[in-house]
Amino acid sequence: MRTVYLNGDYLPETEAKISIFDRAFLMADGVYEVTSVLGGKLIDFDGHLKRLERSLYELDMQKPEAFDDLLEIHRELVRVNAITDGMIYLQVTRGAAGDRDFVFPDPEEVKPTLVLFTQSKPGLANSPLADKGIRVISIEDVRWGRRDIKTTQLLYPSMGKMMAKKAGCDDAWLVEDGFVTEGTSNNAYIVKGNKIITRALSNDILHGITRAAVLRCAAEAQMQVEERNFTIDEAKTADEAFVTSASTFVMPVVEIDGATLGDGKPAHVAKRLREIYLEESLKAAI
Amino acid sequence: MRTVYLNGDYLPETEAKISIFDRAFLMADGVYEVTSVLGGKLIDFDGHLKRLERSLYELDMQKPEAFDDLLEIHRELVRVNAITDGMIYLQVTRGAAGDRDFVFPDPEEVKPTLVLFTQSKPGLANSPLADKGIRVISIEDVRWGRRDIKTTQLLYPSMGKMMAKKAGCDDAWLVEDGFVTEGTSNNAYIVKGNKIITRALSNDILHGITRAAVLRCAAEAQMQVEERNFTIDEAKTADEAFVTSASTFVMPVVEIDGATLGDGKPAHVAKRLREIYLEESLKAAI
Repeated sequence: MRTVYLNGDYLPETEAKISIFDRAFLMADGVYEVTSVLGGKLIDFDGHLKRLERSLYELDMQKPEAFDDLLEIHRELVRVNAITDGMIYLQVTRGAAGDRDFVFPDPEEVKPTLVLFTQSKPGLANSPLADKGIRVISIEDVRWGRRDIKTTQLLYPSMGKMMAKKAGCDDAWLVEDGFVTEGTSNNAYIVKGNKIITRALSNDILHGITRAAVLRCAAEAQMQVEERNFTIDEAKTADEAFVTSASTFVMPVVEIDGATLGDGKPAHVAKRLREIYLEESLKAAI
Repeated sequence: MRTVYLNGDYLPETEAKISIFDRAFLMADGVYEVTSVLGGKLIDFDGHLKRLERSLYELDMQKPEAFDDLLEIHRELVRVNAITDGMIYLQVTRGAAGDRDFVFPDPEEVKPTLVLFTQSKPGLANSPLADKGIRVISIEDVRWGRRDIKTTQLLYPSMGKMMAKKAGCDDAWLVEDGFVTEGTSNNAYIVKGNKIITRALSNDILHGITRAAVLRCAAEAQMQVEERNFTIDEAKTADEAFVTSASTFVMPVVEIDGATLGDGKPAHVAKRLREIYLEESLKAAI
């Protein structure tokens, strides 16, 4: 049984319970981060911490009391759960006010809820899926307008994964006003010639920590990067495509809406970027 | 201390706790209803139950086991908490799968979470605010696209209430593509001459139970109703405005973005509709 962290306590997972009045439960008033663990070490921890801080700031949410201890808590969870490879999920909510009200509770009276738990995924960096590549469908992007804030409003991404599953595919790319925004839980890229094309940062997409790192890797490897909108039609005729996220790193996409990219196998740029990103991340892991 | 209902048990509110793995907590994968209580009786109960059933259906979510007992549970909560006037809040979630995954859990293995609690509001139908009217601001509507499903993705409506509060007002009206969709937790109406104007039903707005009842009342009282889009500019120059919801019934709006409507007091149509709606609702209360 996992040991999880809840508001200062390390508890067996079955005992980690929150009030029915917690604002994440009643109103999706919570933000989260997922940090990968490889070889027992944390990948891009500082990036996730900074983004968490930004999400809290954007929502006028207090930092949890234990904010400065988060690295220690992550490491303790890795230790007690003997995680070699996997993820650490962290969620902060505006807390449990003791009743339901649209108005934010007084931050002097109601403290944020802080939850962390581990997910063990042995061999996370050697996923067989990365050798095969994933197949995606496109669906309309009907999420709220502030996707740059990493909130728990994940119902539609979850529905999107189910739509993909129903279609016999692995994931969905979201399309708004004719252009791809991102995947259900990852940033989306296409490759044309030697150029990597991905949507520019805005409120429309998550500011992926892995996205930033991968674009740095691409620049260091002298690959060209163009940040601009692209359509599903452009994606279907691209040479390659891939997605990035904290838990899948760089994941090749080999099919979009039934159209096979290249020879239907993970191709050069995605494979090379995955190698570089994993190598650099492991070097910098803490 | 309130007694609340959680998955078959009647519990003191402080003991009502849910797993950190509940999908409403992690992914806003939950729907809700709020039913008003007046004089110890339930207002529009059947309407709320039908809408709950529709929300569950739209999200491919199971009915909770106790679905057929919901009237009894509502009544028991009214009884044990001695509620004369107030609300009963009900939430159904896709349950706690024991881990976090975008993919829906197997409905054979993971059962929905069902929570209900009361909110006592003595004199709910005689709110002094209804005699004064409320003041609203307009803000951009950046919610997700399926507002006809009553999900717990309420972060933006909650932020909207805070924006209104900061502006010294009571609530916010949401504007999309130039047209008012609805209020943060109510449907929006303007009155021009003898005509009541409100946005038509679609995925863009909540299918208000109180909205349906109020429009029936209006028709019975020979008032003209036009279901069409309107802008904030049209609203600012309307003769009257009001909102409807299960807990505020018909609430007059006397100011929009700083523009005073009429003489700044609740006017004829809103006042009359409030009277008729309350009268009819009390008659039909169960």
